[in-house]
Amino acid sequence: MKNTFGQNLTVTLFGESHGPAVGAVIDGLSPGLTVDQDFINRQLSRRRPSSLLDTTRQEPDRFQILSGVFNGHTTGTPICIVIPNENTRSGDYVYGPARPSHADYTAFCKYHGYEDYRGGGHFSGRITAALVAVGGILLPALEGLGIRIGTHILQCHGICDRPFGQPEQDIALLAGRSFPVLDEDSGERMAACILEARSNTDSVGGITQTAVTGMCAGVGEPWFDSVESVLTHGLFSIGGIKGVEFGEGFGFAGLSGSEGNDAFRMEEGRVVTVTNCNGGINGGITNGMPILFQCAVKPTASIAKPQQTVDFLKGEDTELVIHGRHDPAIIRRICPVIDSVTAIALCDLLAGRFGTDVFVKGVSL
Amino acid sequence: MKNTFGQNLTVTLFGESHGPAVGAVIDGLSPGLTVDQDFINRQLSRRRPSSLLDTTRQEPDRFQILSGVFNGHTTGTPICIVIPNENTRSGDYVYGPARPSHADYTAFCKYHGYEDYRGGGHFSGRITAALVAVGGILLPALEGLGIRIGTHILQCHGICDRPFGQPEQDIALLAGRSFPVLDEDSGERMAACILEARSNTDSVGGITQTAVTGMCAGVGEPWFDSVESVLTHGLFSIGGIKGVEFGEGFGFAGLSGSEGNDAFRMEEGRVVTVTNCNGGINGGITNGMPILFQCAVKPTASIAKPQQTVDFLKGEDTELVIHGRHDPAIIRRICPVIDSVTAIALCDLLAGRFGTDVFVKGVSL
Amino acid sequence: MKNTFGQNLTVTLFGESHGPAVGAVIDGLSPGLTVDQDFINRQLSRRRPSSLLDTTRQEPDRFQILSGVFNGHTTGTPICIVIPNENTRSGDYVYGPARPSHADYTAFCKYHGYEDYRGGGHFSGRITAALVAVGGILLPALEGLGIRIGTHILQCHGICDRPFGQPEQDIALLAGRSFPVLDEDSGERMAACILEARSNTDSVGGITQTAVTGMCAGVGEPWFDSVESVLTHGLFSIGGIKGVEFGEGFGFAGLSGSEGNDAFRMEEGRVVTVTNCNGGINGGITNGMPILFQCAVKPTASIAKPQQTVDFLKGEDTELVIHGRHDPAIIRRICPVIDSVTAIALCDLLAGRFGTDVFVKGVSL
Amino acid sequence: MKNTFGQNLTVTLFGESHGPAVGAVIDGLSPGLTVDQDFINRQLSRRRPSSLLDTTRQEPDRFQILSGVFNGHTTGTPICIVIPNENTRSGDYVYGPARPSHADYTAFCKYHGYEDYRGGGHFSGRITAALVAVGGILLPALEGLGIRIGTHILQCHGICDRPFGQPEQDIALLAGRSFPVLDEDSGERMAACILEARSNTDSVGGITQTAVTGMCAGVGEPWFDSVESVLTHGLFSIGGIKGVEFGEGFGFAGLSGSEGNDAFRMEEGRVVTVTNCNGGINGGITNGMPILFQCAVKPTASIAKPQQTVDFLKGEDTELVIHGRHDPAIIRRICPVIDSVTAIALCDLLAGRFGTDVFVKGVSL
Repeated sequence: MKNTFGQNLTVTLFGESHGPAVGAVIDGLSPGLTVDQDFINRQLSRRRPSSLLDTTRQEPDRFQILSGVFNGHTTGTPICIVIPNENTRSGDYVYGPARPSHADYTAFCKYHGYEDYRGGGHFSGRITAALVAVGGILLPALEGLGIRIGTHILQCHGICDRPFGQPEQDIALLAGRSFPVLDEDSGERMAACILEARSNTDSVGGITQTAVTGMCAGVGEPWFDSVESVLTHGLFSIGGIKGVEFGEGFGFAGLSGSEGNDAFRMEEGRVVTVTNCNGGINGGITNGMPILFQCAVKPTASIAKPQQTVDFLKGEDTELVIHGRHDPAIIRRICPVIDSVTAIALCDLLAGRFGTDVFVKGVSL
Repeated sequence: MKNTFGQNLTVTLFGESHGPAVGAVIDGLSPGLTVDQDFINRQLSRRRPSSLLDTTRQEPDRFQILSGVFNGHTTGTPICIVIPNENTRSGDYVYGPARPSHADYTAFCKYHGYEDYRGGGHFSGRITAALVAVGGILLPALEGLGIRIGTHILQCHGICDRPFGQPEQDIALLAGRSFPVLDEDSGERMAACILEARSNTDSVGGITQTAVTGMCAGVGEPWFDSVESVLTHGLFSIGGIKGVEFGEGFGFAGLSGSEGNDAFRMEEGRVVTVTNCNGGINGGITNGMPILFQCAVKPTASIAKPQQTVDFLKGEDTELVIHGRHDPAIIRRICPVIDSVTAIALCDLLAGRFGTDVFVKGVSL
Repeated sequence: MKNTFGQNLTVTLFGESHGPAVGAVIDGLSPGLTVDQDFINRQLSRRRPSSLLDTTRQEPDRFQILSGVFNGHTTGTPICIVIPNENTRSGDYVYGPARPSHADYTAFCKYHGYEDYRGGGHFSGRITAALVAVGGILLPALEGLGIRIGTHILQCHGICDRPFGQPEQDIALLAGRSFPVLDEDSGERMAACILEARSNTDSVGGITQTAVTGMCAGVGEPWFDSVESVLTHGLFSIGGIKGVEFGEGFGFAGLSGSEGNDAFRMEEGRVVTVTNCNGGINGGITNGMPILFQCAVKPTASIAKPQQTVDFLKGEDTELVIHGRHDPAIIRRICPVIDSVTAIALCDLLAGRFGTDVFVKGVSL
Repeated sequence: MKNTFGQNLTVTLFGESHGPAVGAVIDGLSPGLTVDQDFINRQLSRRRPSSLLDTTRQEPDRFQILSGVFNGHTTGTPICIVIPNENTRSGDYVYGPARPSHADYTAFCKYHGYEDYRGGGHFSGRITAALVAVGGILLPALEGLGIRIGTHILQCHGICDRPFGQPEQDIALLAGRSFPVLDEDSGERMAACILEARSNTDSVGGITQTAVTGMCAGVGEPWFDSVESVLTHGLFSIGGIKGVEFGEGFGFAGLSGSEGNDAFRMEEGRVVTVTNCNGGINGGITNGMPILFQCAVKPTASIAKPQQTVDFLKGEDTELVIHGRHDPAIIRRICPVIDSVTAIALCDLLAGRFGTDVFVKGVSL
């Protein structure tokens, strides 16, 4: 469905980096949920550039809710959130030379030159502000069901954070951190590495890790809407994500079945697994353990170094030096975006399984 | 859409491992395409167990086409393919003890005990026979547009094949190989490793790599139907796949932008990239270079070793020894399944972009 | 979605009139529902030609369930039902001359000559056998929630049955009638009229009326999935239906608001309406009163009289006399088809509103 | 998909009558189409109240395009159009007594009291302003392919306009008329009838007729996306429409096959039909003749007469006198809404059949 994601709870995105606004429409959310504008603002501030680690484009993200909220609660009808673009410098952009690793050339192939190319247009990370605002509404809805989501930087250009240990506590820990790592020492070394990339007119990539706790067992479909399928459908639309793995993921390649199988045990009357190599999902369906996944994030494509490329309008080779304001790493700012997309995917699965009132009436198996 | 995948060209799967049949319905395919029953049979034989490397359940896969094909050509109406199950030993299965890493427990949570549990039921790898039959129709349709797909075992329990070098030639190479590796020496070592796993009553995992050549630029959507999104939606519904990465994928975490950006160049009047770290996709849209991705495949969950688990009907701990016939590794047999799912996803994207007649009328930008 | 209808509960149709079989896949139905093969047979017999009022093509409709049913219950996974075609006389059909009011010419425009033209191919009323079999599974599922559906012939070529009076009782009455009318005298006159059309080598049209009782209030969406929208989406895919109206329908054109508004009243603690001009739907959402709608059914297109037409292969005018076996009226046989499509649409709406377990867990507002 | 309509070209609606704004997101439209803000304004003015025949609520409909348009052309990315609500008098509305024939009670059943009830909220005809703005973009896109749409009032409370004769010319005629009738004398009598209803504190219903010319043959699907299915799915979401018929529609009930079959003839090398009882659609697929359909529009539910109803909050009978500003008939203002919904449905069918570039590259069979 192109710019609409989800089947039961859907999110439709719109906007360009240098157009009037970016925004989203949420449809299918239960009526009666509290909409906390402060929380939405806090989520937006987690994504906002905040230091030399990030781009110098500063957007206040003054969002407006145009519909679907009445007297502070969701009505059950579509919620349209709009975030005006206020700080644009469109003069920074020229059309023709393709920025390597960006969508300039592919957008030209798809939109035949009519695309709004300024600042990456509809491909810009700016659009993710709308996604994060959506998360600002959906994350509390999930929390109402006891479901919590947290994402940290597991690796930045070779520097590693510790992986999730006790997901419940670790997610709580992350809520208070502006630089989302579990081990703050690693975080400082990552920050230094990002600053160094900036001073080298370069950029760096990394890996994030996400945990979801409190998800009930029995959600997802073997074919074709496995939990992994629905989550990755959303995650791979975030620019810069080039890999997703669940639980042990690529590490399974070196394991034998006897090592990678998660033994089941009864614990306080509940079925649990002793290990969680499968990341909380068996056969595409949640098993009640924390959902765990990692995303590979490529280095920011925009770097100030001269690069070899083509001018696709002229059909000839050229050299490009990118001006404009860019992030030396998006690994920090992508974390709340991943949380939001995860929230959308899970809300959609829950609404499909338990009906549209699930967020107020709760889950009953 | 649960068991239906795709929007413009859709595939609906049905069947259980020990029920009367498995099958699929393909809808949205152009009329006038040749349906080559021999090619479908060859594809099915690539997936079929063939040696001690695989399960001993032998299915002849005698498929029937019930609709949508007339005088050897597609009619443009839905094609229903049915593959009867002929060699079932349902007595091998008991209900209650959850096989670790399998969907027994999650199926119970979802289907409340009404699931056909024999041989994994609807979660069984047996269902992939229907997917491969679908590929037997779609792969020639893509080949008619100059698009070719090939998958090899990049790694099996630590033993590595060489990665794709010249994708066009490598795909041709793979067409002739029953054990899909590029370097046959590596293949022999992998086979030995799988046999060893069998003799240890254990199983092993691995990594596959897939290349797609001949795909035109300009296909895919930035939000939310990026090429990566659509492909992974399909791929993650294949049981056993726990990670997917495109191009450098998780390797991007250690790269800087200046290393990971693919420089564009003009070559014989066409735009190409010098490297292909992005796996042929920029901003979710094809750039005309080969699409490259890797899938992490977990070790077969069914192993003959005693395993700790729970009996979910009784709600108590138990020990389980799995009987029945199983693969010590599915990494070989999963390759044609990945080819088929890739074909479905690409056919869907092409039909959406260029209309339902694209496979007979071709692509015009 | 072309041959797939529904979003939460979906039905995918396949098959051609003279191909090996017709069939359907049902997905999204709750696990644990009893599947009553006798009831499916009874439904199929309601649609089967039974006398001179109908075509002389006799099909035994020996259906097979290939998947999704285990130990007599639905498993929750896709149910594939196949009905082989056994009595075909393909020699009756020639290709080129377009049968007026049929899809021969439009199929040629769409499928470029690759369509299976024998007996109308995928456009044939034969495909509705699969729909009726689907109804044979879904109607009892609805009945488990207290929802009943009945359709009668309201008018046949000017001869009128009485409209629904007490829908609950009238639906019960219809269950026992092979010729579905409420007033048996009218039925006899209709039958005479149909026989006269046959003897005139002509055909006649009519109007059906459908009632649904026991539907809870609060189901449907104002935009764009109103109950009317979802029902008519399904109904208008039945060949021969050219109009649908709810409640007073076209009669509203002559009413004033004070006549057409349904006053609300409390009755035994429930909200009811005094009249039911709106057919149980306000603002696209059920109000708890019976859903009432009428379908206009055109005369069978196949008549034995010589007709002016074109041979679209030759591009020239021609005269056509249709051979083959045809119904002088489909108004009787269409009734169970309408019941089935109505069941699909309502099941889909209920599954979307209350979740996939609704048919076993019931509705709770 | 609830508030999203279409599969290839989609429209998502949002907004409440007395909220900040109503609006829509269009996705899947070809890049490079001219967006004519004056034409959008003209379409909006066709829907706007203009005299005593309509409500006295006056909205300037100052729309803003937030995305998807760049340098006066569509970019190919989602177009978000927002129309602020400027003239609201929320004090006119009380909550509890259900306005008969309105959605107050059903909204309460669905949204549990959280719905924005002011002015009908999301159910209000106000939302159709957004639909008409969408039509302001899509109608020229269709006109670029030679496809024209026109709707007139065929009947208003028993007073009849002449039906479409020469659809091409009649559509051109309607473009210049503020009161959309073909025969202006009938129009004057209809206006008098509406004024009389107003003076009687009552309202009146009617029937519209729509023609589409220039549509190529071969578009639509037999199951389940017949042209009739897709059109009515959209049409029945317009509040007040309670019946839709194609061509002869309910008149088929009195015809024999030899009367209702449309004979085919060759005319200037093209296949045409001599009559058009089927309204341009055979077997769910366009045959190249004008598409013709009629919609039954119920009398405006809001009337100033005292009405019997219930207070659903208190669960008791009550009498209601509706205050606020209302239309004595919506039959005039609904015409451009029907044009817009028709445009959406046809654009969706065309984009599915011929691909997303169809509006710039044209149709090729």
